[in-house]
Amino acid sequence: MTRRPLISISLGDPGGIGPEIVVAALKDRAVAAQARYAIHGSSSALLAAAEALSVEPVWWRVDARRDDLAESAAGHDVVLYDSDPELVEQGRPTEFEHRATKLGGALSFRWVEAAIADARRDPGDPRRAGAVVTAPISKEAWSLAGKGRWPGHTELFAHRFKAPRYAMMFVGDRLRVVLATVHVPLMDVRNELTIGAVHTAIDLGHDACTRLGIRHPRIAVAGLNPHAGEGGLMGDEEARIIAPAIELAGEHGIDVSGPYPGDTVFNAAVAGRFDLVVAMYHDQGLIPVKLLERDLAVNTTLGLPVPRTSPDHGTAFDIAGTGRANPGSMVSSLRLAARLAVTNAPDGAATRSGR
Amino acid sequence: MTRRPLISISLGDPGGIGPEIVVAALKDRAVAAQARYAIHGSSSALLAAAEALSVEPVWWRVDARRDDLAESAAGHDVVLYDSDPELVEQGRPTEFEHRATKLGGALSFRWVEAAIADARRDPGDPRRAGAVVTAPISKEAWSLAGKGRWPGHTELFAHRFKAPRYAMMFVGDRLRVVLATVHVPLMDVRNELTIGAVHTAIDLGHDACTRLGIRHPRIAVAGLNPHAGEGGLMGDEEARIIAPAIELAGEHGIDVSGPYPGDTVFNAAVAGRFDLVVAMYHDQGLIPVKLLERDLAVNTTLGLPVPRTSPDHGTAFDIAGTGRANPGSMVSSLRLAARLAVTNAPDGAATRSGR
Repeated sequence: MTRRPLISISLGDPGGIGPEIVVAALKDRAVAAQARYAIHGSSSALLAAAEALSVEPVWWRVDARRDDLAESAAGHDVVLYDSDPELVEQGRPTEFEHRATKLGGALSFRWVEAAIADARRDPGDPRRAGAVVTAPISKEAWSLAGKGRWPGHTELFAHRFKAPRYAMMFVGDRLRVVLATVHVPLMDVRNELTIGAVHTAIDLGHDACTRLGIRHPRIAVAGLNPHAGEGGLMGDEEARIIAPAIELAGEHGIDVSGPYPGDTVFNAAVAGRFDLVVAMYHDQGLIPVKLLERDLAVNTTLGLPVPRTSPDHGTAFDIAGTGRANPGSMVSSLRLAARLAVTNAPDGAATRSGR
Repeated sequence: MTRRPLISISLGDPGGIGPEIVVAALKDRAVAAQARYAIHGSSSALLAAAEALSVEPVWWRVDARRDDLAESAAGHDVVLYDSDPELVEQGRPTEFEHRATKLGGALSFRWVEAAIADARRDPGDPRRAGAVVTAPISKEAWSLAGKGRWPGHTELFAHRFKAPRYAMMFVGDRLRVVLATVHVPLMDVRNELTIGAVHTAIDLGHDACTRLGIRHPRIAVAGLNPHAGEGGLMGDEEARIIAPAIELAGEHGIDVSGPYPGDTVFNAAVAGRFDLVVAMYHDQGLIPVKLLERDLAVNTTLGLPVPRTSPDHGTAFDIAGTGRANPGSMVSSLRLAARLAVTNAPDGAATRSGR
């Protein structure tokens, strides 16, 4: 068995740009060379993507229903575990619709579950994945398929891995951001923003930075309110929740400061004064990430026993099938996954002693 | 009397960078040529700034306590209405501290009130201002001086002018943003975000765009929740409040759409698809403005009978007195004020019929 990590990929919604960006990313020489890949998806979706991009298929296809998969896949660097329902049941390729459908939701959910299962295999299993990369799914499609209870990949992964603490991080060229709360109505942030939630984001973010090779991460924490509450004049969460979490993390040796006004802290990070910003809610963290990194940042889930990354964009149904999708974020996701798979492996543990 | 508008300037906190950026901005030839100026401030603060910047004083100083000011100031393009307490009472210049003090708060508040008074004079009064520009104040200093009930200039102006509807707008090179709610704890946005508040922001923003010369403004409205509520899966304010406000404005002929996810709508505006974004709360609008425009955007209050602009940054006590402050945003504020003073004047009303 090679030393290159095995990365499990879920193809995402088959009507979205997932198949195209996976095919395009695997054309990248560095991506192809860094790891072996197990793709959970559909043969017809991947073949259509390869045709749209005018590239040769590079994967070895096996029927996802068969039990003797490991044997069949051995020796292949890219294996597709195919569960295309039409191909299997009617003997002809499926044409997926470029919109949210029940079929798209059911398949993309099944593929994520298969990728998670790879990561949960026993250490000795040749199909055990060292990292998981997820292509974009449609939450509307998941809802149509009866999987509406999951607001996104992150929560599903955390649940399946029974992660006691987890957080969503975005890694870009200019900014790294961890969110203290994620997929919750903004006015319900009051119920989710606790000292523990903020501390978890700081602590897991610090750990992730050290895994990324930053020896002494400097972490900034944003406030919740305008001007970070202006010394208590506009909200008390800074004093009641955020400052105590910062203090707690500081007592554990983490270089963390704040709370800083949300509208200036990202400028400070871009200027190089911080390695990581902890944002209090979804848009506070995502507005700067999307503005500065366009759709090229990587989303990674912290707190899992196995690294998970994904592109920082959606299914883009409107351009799916045209071959115009930018695979940049998928390339970055696959590269970050391989890097984290190595530092996450037992012999990579030495890189984690950042504090 | 010349046709150039008279712009009333409040010098801001005397310990902040206000005096420096006013002196530096008035050195700009276009700024000097476009209008006449009435500065409400302190002679010693302005002289110290001129010294730090190595420029000659260009203002005609009059004692703010004297009644025969109009006569004394006549014929001067830049008049300082001096209410420096030390100069007046002890005969020597005041050295203001570069931090929030009660004196700084009391003076900067008085100067703003004087600038507002200029804008409220009778149309025939030679000292009637056609626009007001405010240099940065410290809310902490206002609080020390017993003026803590005012969260900022915007609310004070709205109150003094008895404006039934008002909104805060930021005008930059790449983005124009109006806020539907401003200086309120984030979790209290639920009490302030009404159909009326969102509609006011859209309507006043549309009016401002037409005054700025945009014939058919295209307006985007951001959602409140992550992913603009994801079709009701994460919050209902989009359906209950924001969509009805958009519909109402659309019925009045405004080209407005949304609600769009907060983390993508600003990219669309930067890409040129919209002329204005209506943000639901302070950080949602200010994070992109500060990231893209640095400290060079202009803050302007909509809904007042007289235009009011100000720089998009604070007192910067930490660099005040060094001459290092960037006057860019003050220059832009003075230029925008002059432009709006002209379109706001009775003979400029023709430019307002955008719809």
